[in-house]
Parts: sequence; C-alpha cells; structure tokens
Amino acid sequence: MPNPNTSSETLLDALRWRYATKQFDPSRKLSEAQIKTLEETLVLTPSSFGLQPWRFEFVTDAAIRAELLPHAWGQKQIVDASLLVVLTARREIDEPYLDGFIEDTARTRGHPVSAIAGYRDMIAGFARQLSGQHLAWNTRQVYIALGQLMTAAALMGIDACPMEGISPPDFDRILGLSDTPYATVVACPIGFRHADDKYAHAKKVRFPASAVIRHR
Amino acid sequence: MPNPNTSSETLLDALRWRYATKQFDPSRKLSEAQIKTLEETLVLTPSSFGLQPWRFEFVTDAAIRAELLPHAWGQKQIVDASLLVVLTARREIDEPYLDGFIEDTARTRGHPVSAIAGYRDMIAGFARQLSGQHLAWNTRQVYIALGQLMTAAALMGIDACPMEGISPPDFDRILGLSDTPYATVVACPIGFRHADDKYAHAKKVRFPASAVIRHR
Repeated sequence: MPNPNTSSETLLDALRWRYATKQFDPSRKLSEAQIKTLEETLVLTPSSFGLQPWRFEFVTDAAIRAELLPHAWGQKQIVDASLLVVLTARREIDEPYLDGFIEDTARTRGHPVSAIAGYRDMIAGFARQLSGQHLAWNTRQVYIALGQLMTAAALMGIDACPMEGISPPDFDRILGLSDTPYATVVACPIGFRHADDKYAHAKKVRFPASAVIRHR
Repeated sequence: MPNPNTSSETLLDALRWRYATKQFDPSRKLSEAQIKTLEETLVLTPSSFGLQPWRFEFVTDAAIRAELLPHAWGQKQIVDASLLVVLTARREIDEPYLDGFIEDTARTRGHPVSAIAGYRDMIAGFARQLSGQHLAWNTRQVYIALGQLMTAAALMGIDACPMEGISPPDFDRILGLSDTPYATVVACPIGFRHADDKYAHAKKVRFPASAVIRHR
C-alpha cells in the first residue's frame, strides 16, 4: 500500500470548514457510498488493545428519531440530518467478549488462540483492575471513534454535529439497548448544512497554538 | 472556502495503512511543516461547548523522554519516535477558565461579553452539575483530540502509537504539571515506522461492519 500523502492544506482546510452544524438541510441525503465510507471509518477506529468496545446505531427511521427528539433537548438536528449516528459503549469487558476478541484476532492473523494466551491474560488482568469503571474506560474509546468520524466527515465535505446533550437512558430505552451490553454515549447527526444556518459563517473560536501547545 | 472532497479511497487507504507503531525509525524526523500541521490539527479539534479543556506537550528533549521511559513500561516508542505528544486535560472547569473562554469567544466574533452571558451561564450550570467529574469529562474531550490527531497523521503518511499504558502521576511530575491545572491523560509518540517493525505487516484486526453497525 503506498504511503498516504494528503497535504496539510487539504487537511486543515477541511478542519476549518467543519463546524457543529446547527441546522441541517432535510432535503439533502447522504449517498449509499458515503454511508458505507462512514461505516468503514468507524470500523477502522483504533482502540486500546484493539478491543473495539463499541457499537454504532445508524438511525434513519423517522419515527424513532421523532421519539428521540425530546430526549435531546429538542435539537432539530436529530430529525433533520440525513443520518443519526448514536455511538454506544459496552457496559462491561467480560470474559466472553474478551474470548470473542481473542478468537477474532487469532483467526484474522492465522495463528491458534493459544499463541496469544499471554496477550489475553494481560487484557483480562487489566479489565479486572478496571473493575467498576469499564463503561467509563470504554466511553473514552468511543470518543476516539467520535473524533475519527468527525475528521473523516469533514474531509469528505459532510457535515456533522457532535451532541452530548442527550439523555442516554432514554436513548437506550427507545433504541432497545437497556438490557443489552451496550449503552448510549453520544449522538452525531450527519448530513449537509442548511443554506440558512448562520452558524456556518461564524468565526471559529480556538485558543491560539501558543496557548495549548508547549514545546519541551 | 470550497467544500472538502477527499475521496473515500484516500481516506480509507490511510486508515488501513496506519497501525499502532511498535518500532519507530529514530533516524527519521518530522519536518517543521509537519509538526506545525499536527499542532494546528490539535488546535482545531472540536470539543463540547468549544471549551478546549486541554493542553498538548510536544516533547522532543531526549533527557526528558529518557526520564519518562520507565513510566511507560519501557516502551521504546517514547524515546525513538521523532516527537512525543502528551495529551493533557484540565483538572477543573473553573470560573476564571470559563471567563477566559467567553472573552475569547466574544473577541473572536466581535461582540460584547454581555451578548453571550446566557451561554456562559448555561456552561457554568453544566460545570456545577458535573462537580467532581471535571477531569473525567475533560478527559473524554481529549480523546476526541487523540482521534483527530491519529486520523490526521495517517492521512499525512505519518505514524503514531496511542499509548494509555503510562503512569500519569509520574508524567505529571517529570513534565512539571503536578501543581498546574493540567493532568496527563494519554501519550502519542509520532514519527515514522522502522523498516524492521513486523507489526506493520500484521493483518489489521477489526470486527466486521455487520457486528458493530446496526441500521434502524
């Protein structure tokens, strides 16, 4: 595979172009190919130990989205964006999950499970020591996925609005997650900005590099 | 600004090319321009409310990195990579910080602070309700930055290795952060893979899209 070589200009122009979209154009829809790319972007997200302790709900159903709306402070992006992605994290890193991950790793790389028994034991020890904080740890991994998703969308010229202001228990109930291993973490409506969204033209507010980067 | 239009192939090829680099080539250095782009990528990272509750330590000093090494399980990427980025989060979202952010927002957008007093009050209320969990919340924001940083590096053909296996209190001590508002969260050595790193050729392990994406 050749080395990637996207230019700084391409990258930074995309990051400057993006903003937390307040108003989506409900008439503009993502193509099937764009949705597939966003899926694959999430699948490829790095995670600690490669554990991928997450699942992503791609919600297009209008009735479900209308039901979610009041549990997101009525923010209309929930219903207006072409796609609503709800990022969820595993509540636990339990032994069956870990075994499934180890089997997948062994199968992918063509060696027996026994060849990575030490790796499995290390992760199991880490998970025991994390006891009671699995959801918090998994949630941080999900935020890597959120970062990668927003960056990828921007590069593709697709708008997004990361949204923490939601009620995870209500999202869980409506999405049928309450009694599953997965819990709602954060939402991200994705689509295309409305021509009327005045926030698209607001100057981006960022501290200067001199305030947030220290060279040592 | 024209719409970004990076192709799916360019994006996904970069995400498939990247891996958690185990062995960096110490002789290959990032250019000044590449470092500036990584800085700007971090500066532009989205965060909830735009609060940017972070600072990023760019460590090149060999003596500091040698001192950090034993507090990262001796993982040689700490000393071998061209650049070591240590991502830190604010311990608190306190009133002076919030005031500084609001002033920066008002100045950037050319309106008086009073015009966004309601916005300030909303964030202050949120921060009060988060009492005791500021570092945890800010840490999640830092993971967005980690995701954006890794995605950006991959697109530029630059290698990285996200690294949670470090001792934050020791990093804080060595980096002089212990009595500051910022706490070490995660490290990310950045540079170029060594030709001998056999992990560069290991098959990437990911659950299939059908296992982690659900369409509703």
